[in-house]
Amino acid sequence: MKATFLYEANDVRVVEIPKPTLMYNTDAVLRVVAACVCGSDLHPYHNAKFDEVGEAMGHEVIGVITELGSEVRNFSIGDLVVVPFSLSDNTCEYCLDGNQTSCIHGEFLEGAQAEYVRVAQASGSMVKLPVTEDSPLIPSLLTLSDVYGTGYHAAIKGGVDASKTVTVIGDGAVGLLAVMSAKKLGAKRIILMGRHKVRTDLGVEFGANDVISERGDEGIKKLMEITNGVGTDVVIEAVGYLDAYEMALGVVRHGGVISRVGVPQYKMGPIGYSSLFSHNITLTGGLAPTRNYIHELMPDILDGKLNPGKVFDLTLGLDHVKEAYEAMNTRKAIKVLIKP
Amino acid sequence: MKATFLYEANDVRVVEIPKPTLMYNTDAVLRVVAACVCGSDLHPYHNAKFDEVGEAMGHEVIGVITELGSEVRNFSIGDLVVVPFSLSDNTCEYCLDGNQTSCIHGEFLEGAQAEYVRVAQASGSMVKLPVTEDSPLIPSLLTLSDVYGTGYHAAIKGGVDASKTVTVIGDGAVGLLAVMSAKKLGAKRIILMGRHKVRTDLGVEFGANDVISERGDEGIKKLMEITNGVGTDVVIEAVGYLDAYEMALGVVRHGGVISRVGVPQYKMGPIGYSSLFSHNITLTGGLAPTRNYIHELMPDILDGKLNPGKVFDLTLGLDHVKEAYEAMNTRKAIKVLIKP
Repeated sequence: MKATFLYEANDVRVVEIPKPTLMYNTDAVLRVVAACVCGSDLHPYHNAKFDEVGEAMGHEVIGVITELGSEVRNFSIGDLVVVPFSLSDNTCEYCLDGNQTSCIHGEFLEGAQAEYVRVAQASGSMVKLPVTEDSPLIPSLLTLSDVYGTGYHAAIKGGVDASKTVTVIGDGAVGLLAVMSAKKLGAKRIILMGRHKVRTDLGVEFGANDVISERGDEGIKKLMEITNGVGTDVVIEAVGYLDAYEMALGVVRHGGVISRVGVPQYKMGPIGYSSLFSHNITLTGGLAPTRNYIHELMPDILDGKLNPGKVFDLTLGLDHVKEAYEAMNTRKAIKVLIKP
Repeated sequence: MKATFLYEANDVRVVEIPKPTLMYNTDAVLRVVAACVCGSDLHPYHNAKFDEVGEAMGHEVIGVITELGSEVRNFSIGDLVVVPFSLSDNTCEYCLDGNQTSCIHGEFLEGAQAEYVRVAQASGSMVKLPVTEDSPLIPSLLTLSDVYGTGYHAAIKGGVDASKTVTVIGDGAVGLLAVMSAKKLGAKRIILMGRHKVRTDLGVEFGANDVISERGDEGIKKLMEITNGVGTDVVIEAVGYLDAYEMALGVVRHGGVISRVGVPQYKMGPIGYSSLFSHNITLTGGLAPTRNYIHELMPDILDGKLNPGKVFDLTLGLDHVKEAYEAMNTRKAIKVLIKP
């Protein structure tokens, strides 16, 4: 079958490999209906060192079950399912907390940009979809794998509710869906910080009240101007670079919350007296347990009330995966859907 | 009058200065009944550079009002009051949030280790005490200025309730009163990490279920052993050094909260993927708005139900202030009460 591998920075290719099979009784194998490229795939696309085995790419998927391990319960061959990027048994103490990314049997989904993919911890991870594989809702349902659930996690951890003003830093798919999530939770005001008009326009459609295109100190200054100098109660950081965290420090209201869902590309950062402590700023967020939010977020999609799939502004066949990465890397596309 | 000044590291002295007077209509002047030395006073005591003017020491006080500015409401000359270390108007938007340490008119109380002290923002800051100045409850009521309110802030920001296990790092007055606070909030289990038996014994009296005297990796190992390898839901960091924060990272449960009230003696710290992000650890806490908690914490003291004043294990006259600092510096005393 065809599958996507990354061998080195900028070297992503579709290659022919054997079709995956069950490795454990708790596995399933899916025929991929839709996969996609994630903003986080761009980090190894930028930085990966040469590896002749390569890294199997893709961690977001909707597929049809073609094989089921003997211990997988409540699913049948032929079921259409969505799978979160982080696989979990959904029964351990962390999963029961709603923190499936800390599952004691957890691992990441790999190799979804392919014709078939093996899913570990299938019982706990997969969620059945009440649509057919040709449904126009597939792109929106695919966002439940990662980007919508991640944006929602940021808003939930940030404590967004009707009493809160919110800044979202980053106009990638996660940032835009954090806007949608903050809106869903009733945020009083949502300010989106992003530079790409096509993206921020979608952010406005998703619920942003204001857009700030300036970055760094200029962006902070602009935000403080439109918030009477106090900033916002919640700041969602959906980028992952240190300067985005520093921008968050600059726009968060005293007593407020910075909620990070951009995977940090840094180890150390300012957390001392003047940055967080003296103003009682809370730093929260983390790797999103998107499995936890699928049942909560799916109804609005099925009802046609929300359309998070609008973040997919390009659809390509698996043979064009290189083009897909390049389109995201050069910001020509917000997010690329891959159809095998 | 006599007042305490710090001129350089290790050089703290009682000197004769003019009695303070009202500077603003919103001020009051108090005759000091009880003041004390704070763990945070030890930082300049260790590090201060030579300054011929000196720093007026002391930010915790109970006193009798001797002068009142024309704009101070609801107080009379002769009232006995407690004053939080952080002065506030108690009417601005941050104060109404319960975040008085961010008050737009805020400043710190200074010079309380003296015979008289000027209190700015007196209407908002002072709280009347329903006892006389010879009451045996004075030491416990004095902890409402800072250490009890600070320990309580740590527990509140950490989200302590009956479902939570709690680690308290640090056996100073704040750490011990964080134990009392966690107990008051119903914590399921409280583990105190501290090395000084006299102090940890008081911690056990205040509600700690376990004491770990080892530090660093040994301490982390011990704590993980007694928590089935998962750590605790909440970790209160009541020290302020980077190694205490790193210890907190080592013992916090995935999905848990580190709540800091030790004033950070560092600017940068680990906040990246492996330290906070991948486990969804929340970092919270900050400079405690103790004014916010005085009315909540006072009844248990007046009823004799709780005795936070036990952290004062030495009482000295103002003339012996040098001895007071030395007793705390060498850990001979947990906290020293100063009587002018």
